[in-house]
Formats: sequence, C-alpha cells, structure tokens
Amino acid sequence: MHILILGAAGMVGRKLTQRLVQNGVLRGQTITKLTLVDIIKPTAPENFTGKVKTKAIDITSRKAIDKLIAKQPEVIFHLAAIVSGEAEANFDKGYAINLQGTQHLFEAIRHEEAYCPRLVFTSSIAVFGAPFPQKIGDEFFTTPLTSYGTQKAIGELLLSDYSRKGIFDGVGIRLPTICVRPGLPNAAASGFFSNIIREPLVGKEAILPVSDDVMHWHASPRAAINFLLHAAEMETTSLGARRALTMPGLATTVAEQIEALREIAGEAAVKLIKREPNETITKIVSGWPRQFNAKRATSLGFKAETSFKEIIEAHIEDELKHILKMS
Amino acid sequence: MHILILGAAGMVGRKLTQRLVQNGVLRGQTITKLTLVDIIKPTAPENFTGKVKTKAIDITSRKAIDKLIAKQPEVIFHLAAIVSGEAEANFDKGYAINLQGTQHLFEAIRHEEAYCPRLVFTSSIAVFGAPFPQKIGDEFFTTPLTSYGTQKAIGELLLSDYSRKGIFDGVGIRLPTICVRPGLPNAAASGFFSNIIREPLVGKEAILPVSDDVMHWHASPRAAINFLLHAAEMETTSLGARRALTMPGLATTVAEQIEALREIAGEAAVKLIKREPNETITKIVSGWPRQFNAKRATSLGFKAETSFKEIIEAHIEDELKHILKMS
Repeated sequence: MHILILGAAGMVGRKLTQRLVQNGVLRGQTITKLTLVDIIKPTAPENFTGKVKTKAIDITSRKAIDKLIAKQPEVIFHLAAIVSGEAEANFDKGYAINLQGTQHLFEAIRHEEAYCPRLVFTSSIAVFGAPFPQKIGDEFFTTPLTSYGTQKAIGELLLSDYSRKGIFDGVGIRLPTICVRPGLPNAAASGFFSNIIREPLVGKEAILPVSDDVMHWHASPRAAINFLLHAAEMETTSLGARRALTMPGLATTVAEQIEALREIAGEAAVKLIKREPNETITKIVSGWPRQFNAKRATSLGFKAETSFKEIIEAHIEDELKHILKMS
Repeated sequence: MHILILGAAGMVGRKLTQRLVQNGVLRGQTITKLTLVDIIKPTAPENFTGKVKTKAIDITSRKAIDKLIAKQPEVIFHLAAIVSGEAEANFDKGYAINLQGTQHLFEAIRHEEAYCPRLVFTSSIAVFGAPFPQKIGDEFFTTPLTSYGTQKAIGELLLSDYSRKGIFDGVGIRLPTICVRPGLPNAAASGFFSNIIREPLVGKEAILPVSDDVMHWHASPRAAINFLLHAAEMETTSLGARRALTMPGLATTVAEQIEALREIAGEAAVKLIKREPNETITKIVSGWPRQFNAKRATSLGFKAETSFKEIIEAHIEDELKHILKMS
C-alpha cells in the first residue's frame, strides 16, 4: 500500500502520518510506502519500516503533480490548501493553490492509465455562509462568504463529477473547527476557541474576545484523523454522486468549554482566561456556522466526540502526556 | 449603452438580440452598441440604428476574451455553453468551454481597471440531481449528475465570489426547460416536450416517448428573454453573496400539455401525437427535477407563465404569426 499525502507538513498532515505509521495498515493492507509532500519539505516519520519519500513541491505546477501520480499511489490524502485569511487577502494565490492545484491533481489522475485511487479531499464548513438555520442539515446549499469557502465548494463539485466518471474514488470531508489545536496561539479569528483551553492547561493566560454564549462546531485533532482514515477505508458505493460529507462534531458554547475546563483543571485554570471583548472578532464569528445535523456522515460510520470534556482529555493524552509524566 | 452577448448565435441569443433591438433601451439608457459573439459568427440584427460588431470567437482563448472586455461593455450576457449531452460525451471540451471559458471571462473583467459591468450568467436546473423533493426550494443543495451541471454549479459559485469581491455585478439565472422550442425537432432527450406541441400545430406528427403523468418545469422562450432582461436591470444589493437564482416556471404534466393543445388546436392536432414509449428517455427524464418553489426569484420580480395555454399562445404569437397571416 503506497499512500500519498499532499499537505503533509501541516498539523493535520503530521498527525495523519504519525497515525498511519503507528497503525502500519490501511484498507487491510500493509503500508509499504509513504510519499509526503508540502510546499516545504515534510519531516520523515520515525519508526517507519517502509519506504518514505519527502519532497517540497508546489501544486500549482502540473508537472510536479504528474510525477507524483505516475507512481500510482493507491490512496491519496489531499490536505494542501492556502487557509481562509490568506486566500481572502491574496485572490490569485488562493485560486492558484486551492482551485488550480486541486484541478492539477484531478487531471493528473485522469490522464494516468488503468488507475483509480481512493482520494480523500479535506473540505471545510466554510462552504456555508450566513444566513443559515441554527442546525445546518445535509441538504443545505453551499453559499460561501470567502474565496477559500468558494474554492472548497468547487473542489467538492469536481470531486463528485470525477468520481461519477470513475476517474477516482473520492470522499470529501468537511472538517469542523479543530479544537484543541496544539502549538502556539495563532492570530486566526478562530484561535481563541483553542487558546482558552490549551494555554490555561499549562498555566498560561489566554484572551477570550467573545461572549460566553457564542456557540461553535468542534472536533479534536484525533477525531479529524479518524475521519480521514475512515474516509480512506469506507465503502463508497452508497455515496453515489454526492461525495461531500459534513463531518459530525460537537456544538459547544464558550461557557460549556469553560465549564469542562473547570471540571478537568479546576478554578485556577479558569481564572487564567481573560475577557477582552473584541468587536471585530465577534462580528466575524457571528457569520460562522454554529451547529450541524451531520446525519449522513454519522450513518456512514464517522464519529466525533460527544462532550467537550472528551475533547480536552484527548488533548491532554495526545499533547501533554510527556509534560505530565515529567511533573 | 454597450452590450456584449457571448453565445449570440444560439436560439436564446438570437431572441435576446431581437428584443434588445426592438426595445432600444436597457437600464434606462439607449443601446448604442451591440457586440455579438459566438463560436460561429452571429447574424447582425436588422433595423438597429446603433453600432453592431459580430465576431466568431473561441472563449477558450483568453486573448480573444481580453479584446472584447477591453471595450468595457456595460452589460454582458454570458450564454455561451456546450450543452449537456456534448459536455458529457466530451469531458475536455465541456470543461474547456463551460468552466475555463467562464473563468477567462471573469478574469478578463478582473484585470480591466475601473470597470464593474453587470454580468448575467445563464445557469440551469441541471445543477440539481436526484434524489430531490417533489418541489425543490431555494436553499436545496446542488448535486449535479452531469459534467454540464457541475460546470454550471461551479460557474454560479465563481459568479458569487467575484461579485462579492466587487469585480463585477453578477446575476445567475437557472433557466427552466425552454418550451415551446422553435426550429426543427432535435435529438435531445428533452426534445419531445416541445415536439408534441410545435409539430401538431403545423399539422405534423410528433413522438411522445414517456407516459402522460411525467411532470416537468417549463418556461417559454419569451419568458426566458424576460428573465435575462430583468437580470440585467434589477437592483442587486438584496442578492448579497447569493447570486444564483432559480427562475420561476410552470410545473406541467404531459397530460396537461396535451389538454392545453386540445383547447387551442382541437382534437385533430392531438391525434398527431404518437405514443412510442422509450425506456432510455423515460429513465433519463425520471432523474430530472420536476418542480421548484422559486420564491426568491419571484419576490425579486421574475415572472413566468402561469398556464400551459399561455406558453402555447406565446409560441403561436412569436413563431407562427407569419404563417397564420398567410393562411
């Protein structure tokens, strides 16, 4: 089993690589080769007995993509993307990477003979734009309010059409906001959802820029990796020509996040959350989806956390174990 | 007022040109120039006092599009497309014209300075694919079952994103099946909806390949031209970033079509309809949308026929008047 990951240097790509190495198998077959590419050269995983190829490539180059596809990897994870803020600020770059890059991949596969890989495409809840119902169902229309969301929605349509034509066997998964995101606090408007948990857990302050009643749609990095693996392994005949799936997640208010933190880490941790209301962030967040009814994905076997406590516990297990062991 | 029509040689393009010449004004301004392009050179309209330029161009050439846009037409009608059957049979050609051609147009406009034209884009109910509810609402998701429908759905997403960015002021209209389509019977799977009316009206036989209870979504060519003109003239601020609109139409069964024909042309005309059930066509048609709740477009002032009799009468007035005068 040869697996190709596009976007392997990002947080999700690294965690996916780690899990694949740890599992050793995918779709019932031993993983013998990993090809890991990104705009910067990804780090090769430790403890992997198969072949690894790591490479910095620019997916706006059709030639670079053709070379990767000529090796006919059986499973492809397409995680590579310019994120929302950058795609909004740089129109050309966003379309070049998120749309044209995706088209290059799809076309390279189409031109490869006797080849039909499983292709897992990460989409986003950014394909939806306000106004929408409190709970967005599986048949609600996509009306993105960003170029990033537009590019993802187009990727989903292409994924379905190329799959319908038998060019590849695609599964598109719309990821919830990943929480708790490991690493340093970042400037993304959604950063605080993770910051207010991750920072207090290690004794640091975090800023909360919105009110406690703000609700959002979350899944842990661990759940996201489970989604990717399930999308690679699931039976796809029941998908028909509808290849994009809203992933399950957990609709949680900031107040509920804080309550779960209190249960796990006590009042001292909660006191490290500093309320600094920010109108700009409040406005941005108010345009985001809050809750989904992800019936279809759930019935197809995708599973997310069912309590925010579980999300925090996953974070502690996956990110803080080594620290806890030391203390 | 300078107007550009891409796809001016087609049935809708020719009728639109004719109406624009007849009206003489658009958006309250005198039409001083018409640029009419298509893959074959369109015929110049008669009785037009302004300037006319007709040209055969291939929209897969970005250069050709750039030249047209350099003249900064104030209103653009983008009707050019490879139709459903051909786009399905020829994957490359369909994507080249329906997707890349549209992208060329949008990009040419983006690179033109101090320019923001009204852009009317014709989409199609082919953006929807079964299964769907009996009546499809304005917020139902697009799940095309053809490459043509996929390309149109992508065009709609790009139209909304470019409009949101202020690159142009776009309106996308999803046309119902045009009935009664003038001209010769054609081989399209939907052809019979028009054939069973048009042919008997002039004393010719027509074949009905489906059962009488088949329901479909219709509008006359005249209504389609009205949609295009209204899309060019309407206020767009209320559209926000949702630029694609399902046009109103008339959900009619074949039995109701025949009943209307009987009322207008009598039993003799109805007898010219020959029932020759065709499984292939029956299967194709069963996957098509039958009925919509086009609330949004209706509230924005788009109007279609309310009875099939009206549709037949429009056909007689627009296409058969000269014949009737002769008899």
